[in-house]
Amino acid sequence: MNTAIIAAAGMGSRMASDRPKQFLHLAGVPIIFHTLAPFEECAQIQEVIVVLPAEEAAAFLTLAGKRGLRKLSRVVPGGTTRADSVKRGLTAIRPATAGIVAVHDGVRPFVTVEEIESVVNAAESDGAAILVAPVTDTIKQVADDSVVKSLDRSELRRALTPQCFRYELLKKAYELADVNDPALTDESALVEKTGARITTIEGSSRNIKLTTPQDLLIAEAFLKQ
Amino acid sequence: MNTAIIAAAGMGSRMASDRPKQFLHLAGVPIIFHTLAPFEECAQIQEVIVVLPAEEAAAFLTLAGKRGLRKLSRVVPGGTTRADSVKRGLTAIRPATAGIVAVHDGVRPFVTVEEIESVVNAAESDGAAILVAPVTDTIKQVADDSVVKSLDRSELRRALTPQCFRYELLKKAYELADVNDPALTDESALVEKTGARITTIEGSSRNIKLTTPQDLLIAEAFLKQ
Repeated sequence: MNTAIIAAAGMGSRMASDRPKQFLHLAGVPIIFHTLAPFEECAQIQEVIVVLPAEEAAAFLTLAGKRGLRKLSRVVPGGTTRADSVKRGLTAIRPATAGIVAVHDGVRPFVTVEEIESVVNAAESDGAAILVAPVTDTIKQVADDSVVKSLDRSELRRALTPQCFRYELLKKAYELADVNDPALTDESALVEKTGARITTIEGSSRNIKLTTPQDLLIAEAFLKQ
Repeated sequence: MNTAIIAAAGMGSRMASDRPKQFLHLAGVPIIFHTLAPFEECAQIQEVIVVLPAEEAAAFLTLAGKRGLRKLSRVVPGGTTRADSVKRGLTAIRPATAGIVAVHDGVRPFVTVEEIESVVNAAESDGAAILVAPVTDTIKQVADDSVVKSLDRSELRRALTPQCFRYELLKKAYELADVNDPALTDESALVEKTGARITTIEGSSRNIKLTTPQDLLIAEAFLKQ
């Protein structure tokens, strides 16, 4: 059984709103439900676990019930960091039947069914796979407010989600990880430390993470397209 | 005398349009004129040179005349690469009175007067300065469709424009450079090769480069804000 863990426990401090960003509305619907839709539709995903701020669980479940999300199996209260939250989601998976775990940001509503399928399929064959997009800007390594060097952007990719791993591999990575390490900005960073090969799958640059009010404007523009 | 070189010679092959992107309309006005406005207003810039596709020069000058751009001194036909185009712009500057050269992308219309001022001021004191913005994504170094490693994004910045240099420094950098080298994605990359220190000035992430139809949607959303 393949499980999606939707990481939606953030408090959205950069959104200048009194609501966590994953519950802000986009085209009249909370962002989290936009995000859940392609996982509901994707045949490679059988179960969805949502990690939320503890105080949001009841209201979420009421709305989720109305929307008929068949695959939603658990709502898990989040931890103090993203890594801690995803680890709690992982604990809710039954080891005996666990297959691929697809971790996805709750505020990336533009992922497509095809992208989820591609990354799950790659993880099934390779053990670990992440969705990436090209880096379009010139990236500089900097120190003390000056340029150290320009990096070769043909060798760089932006890590998106989902990031998919065999259950045992991700579990092992979390056992080795310090979930309070701020350098762990995605699951891949944890799994890289185990030495496992991580396949990259090229995805769309539309699959943005909504973290600022500006991102919401961009998202509304995408939906109008 | 400080000169802005506006690099607008690109043919916009990624824009899926029959017009070069810098001439597409944003809120009813060609993008290039949005871009020129803050340079016209900025007290630290005395002269503006625009590098254009040769066949666009006449139509541009007609429009520019109607808009009363006082600082526009020359329209220069572009070369085959960005670096070649900027080099041609540089050739149009009078060495005897040259001060700081501010190179800016013709399709970055959201730069502010204050940002231009900050970068010009830093280049006057340090010799070279570029506008940058934080990297918000996790960046992976990749090879053969797999992850090599995660980079520490606190050490990375996205290079924006303007990029400002003392005339003699930029001229020397172009003398040393192969303008057909595809790794030269910005002027800073050339100047780095001379060993000069390049100061980074933190700018707004609104200062995006409009290269795809999706970017135009985002730009329209910014303008409605």
